[in-house]
Amino acid sequence: MTAGLPGSVTLLPVPGVPEVRAGDDLAGLLTTALSALGDLQEGDVLVVSSKVVSKALGLREPEGRAREDLVLRHSRRVVAERATPAGGTTRIVEAVAGPVMAAAGLDASNTGPDGGTLVLPEDPDAAARELHEGLVRHGAPARVAVVLSDTAGRPWRSGQTDLALGSWGLRVLDDLRGGTDADGRPLAVTARAVADEVTAAADLVKGKLGGIAAAVVRGLTDHLAESGGDGARSLVRTGPTDWFGLGRAEAVRTALGAAPGTVEAATVGIPSVRPEDDEDRGERAVRLALLGQAPGVTVTGSAAEGYAVRSPDPVLAGRVAARLEVALAGEQVAALVVVELAGDASADD
Amino acid sequence: MTAGLPGSVTLLPVPGVPEVRAGDDLAGLLTTALSALGDLQEGDVLVVSSKVVSKALGLREPEGRAREDLVLRHSRRVVAERATPAGGTTRIVEAVAGPVMAAAGLDASNTGPDGGTLVLPEDPDAAARELHEGLVRHGAPARVAVVLSDTAGRPWRSGQTDLALGSWGLRVLDDLRGGTDADGRPLAVTARAVADEVTAAADLVKGKLGGIAAAVVRGLTDHLAESGGDGARSLVRTGPTDWFGLGRAEAVRTALGAAPGTVEAATVGIPSVRPEDDEDRGERAVRLALLGQAPGVTVTGSAAEGYAVRSPDPVLAGRVAARLEVALAGEQVAALVVVELAGDASADD
Repeated sequence: MTAGLPGSVTLLPVPGVPEVRAGDDLAGLLTTALSALGDLQEGDVLVVSSKVVSKALGLREPEGRAREDLVLRHSRRVVAERATPAGGTTRIVEAVAGPVMAAAGLDASNTGPDGGTLVLPEDPDAAARELHEGLVRHGAPARVAVVLSDTAGRPWRSGQTDLALGSWGLRVLDDLRGGTDADGRPLAVTARAVADEVTAAADLVKGKLGGIAAAVVRGLTDHLAESGGDGARSLVRTGPTDWFGLGRAEAVRTALGAAPGTVEAATVGIPSVRPEDDEDRGERAVRLALLGQAPGVTVTGSAAEGYAVRSPDPVLAGRVAARLEVALAGEQVAALVVVELAGDASADD
Repeated sequence: MTAGLPGSVTLLPVPGVPEVRAGDDLAGLLTTALSALGDLQEGDVLVVSSKVVSKALGLREPEGRAREDLVLRHSRRVVAERATPAGGTTRIVEAVAGPVMAAAGLDASNTGPDGGTLVLPEDPDAAARELHEGLVRHGAPARVAVVLSDTAGRPWRSGQTDLALGSWGLRVLDDLRGGTDADGRPLAVTARAVADEVTAAADLVKGKLGGIAAAVVRGLTDHLAESGGDGARSLVRTGPTDWFGLGRAEAVRTALGAAPGTVEAATVGIPSVRPEDDEDRGERAVRLALLGQAPGVTVTGSAAEGYAVRSPDPVLAGRVAARLEVALAGEQVAALVVVELAGDASADD
């Protein structure tokens, strides 16, 4: 056996958690399941899928409500959106629960016999703290961390990983700034997202099809925080320090007056998750260029042939032409835009 | 002891790897270090920091070269950029090595006594395969996976985690699409980025200040791939399916003709990593609005008072006014823009 070597960490799946219903004592169910592993030990990190926490807390929207309305209800703002072939809209949002994630973390799979849609706790750190209190009441050592995990996609990477949705008792960020590297040079910007690495590690043993709701991460005693730690909410980076507060298309559309999640965006038309040809993209760009502009301007043409903007008002023609160029660039369509003034056949690019 | 329980995974740090120099037999050094752990076992995943791979391969840019030139040289394209207080530019790029990451993964810390800047292998999957071959030559079982790890920040999350830069022998993506959940409902979109979760887990024991270059992940036999697997490059998602191919500011700037990493962007001015006041942002928006436009137009005013666009050419005035509105939105500055035509004191917003 190799476990117990200096510095090693063990990831233990926690089987035997039964189907969780609203009002269940989740800490009690976990304690029973953990007893097969020899109970929680001082310094353990218990990673629990947010799904079972939501089930125990009864955080469930009934069936019959429009999914898109539910997503917006559980979101602070929309980061990106795409139309789906089925006629709906899939959205990446800043969830009320904290992270930026698809569909506000709403969960319609593995929801159990009660059906409906599971929703995330509004304060996942508080839910982790309460679960910790329950575990201690059931005999767990106080010096144990509890992390709620959820699953999310990432920009630039295929596939999902688990991340820390809520945390109690863990130093979620291991801030090495101010330290020095092994060569004695200062470490300028390194801060490890330990809580996210812990949930990613735990996912390796929790699996998905197996329905394992929890895992113990044993050997990270040094990362435990005395008074709860900062919580997983502190790992959420939004606002001015987040350079990716809107998707690429959404940034341009927002600058032209059609922010994601608004009536304006829906009126212009939302890009599809499926590849679209230049003509469809171009038509959307024309609608976006005309959004909120005074009447009296027409746009003709196509992505293949280029577009002509005509208006008796030359200022308006110039405005719409510039907006159309920007909108086309936002759609990544290369097409020429010319202005044709009334009674003037000459082109002004 | 709890290791060996069904489904458990053990993370073992590999101490004792000496300082690696160009030309060193890294597989041999790792084999010696691993012997203290009882050698690699069939089904193990060995996670190795790309840093030591780059050292062994001599992938090092000498000192004295401008860091920003090095970053661009090792990049396919720039995703986002910010000016630093020291007068430089920090960039998130799509690295030649594959992932989107800061500074193309160039590494100037812990580079060892040789100094200079470590650069990533151009084909990290091939480097993982070669390391695997070397380990087998030194006696390791063939059925062992090798994953090269590197460290990266993430949008929307504080702190860095490790990700899979190169891989040989692991099923990097555990595609559950087509399966069903525990309730029998179809799993539509879930595909686990196992390789990224493996490197995140390994980082928990490798640490940073400790200078541990490798870790063994034991217990993931089911995730090994027979003929090498798809490689970590397959986890890189760029192009049309990546909704975040440019930063929020960069998407707008690109649509107006100043893509990141270009002379045009530098001419207009690159936003600072530090918070800037509305006037600085507004001045940059004016330069961006005028970029590439015909002469004969002036813009006066300020973010606080609003801006006036004047030109004898009304089409041009309209064009620049619309561009300025978009540029201001991209800078998240709320300011009114009016057009004042020559000999006309009336305003046209």
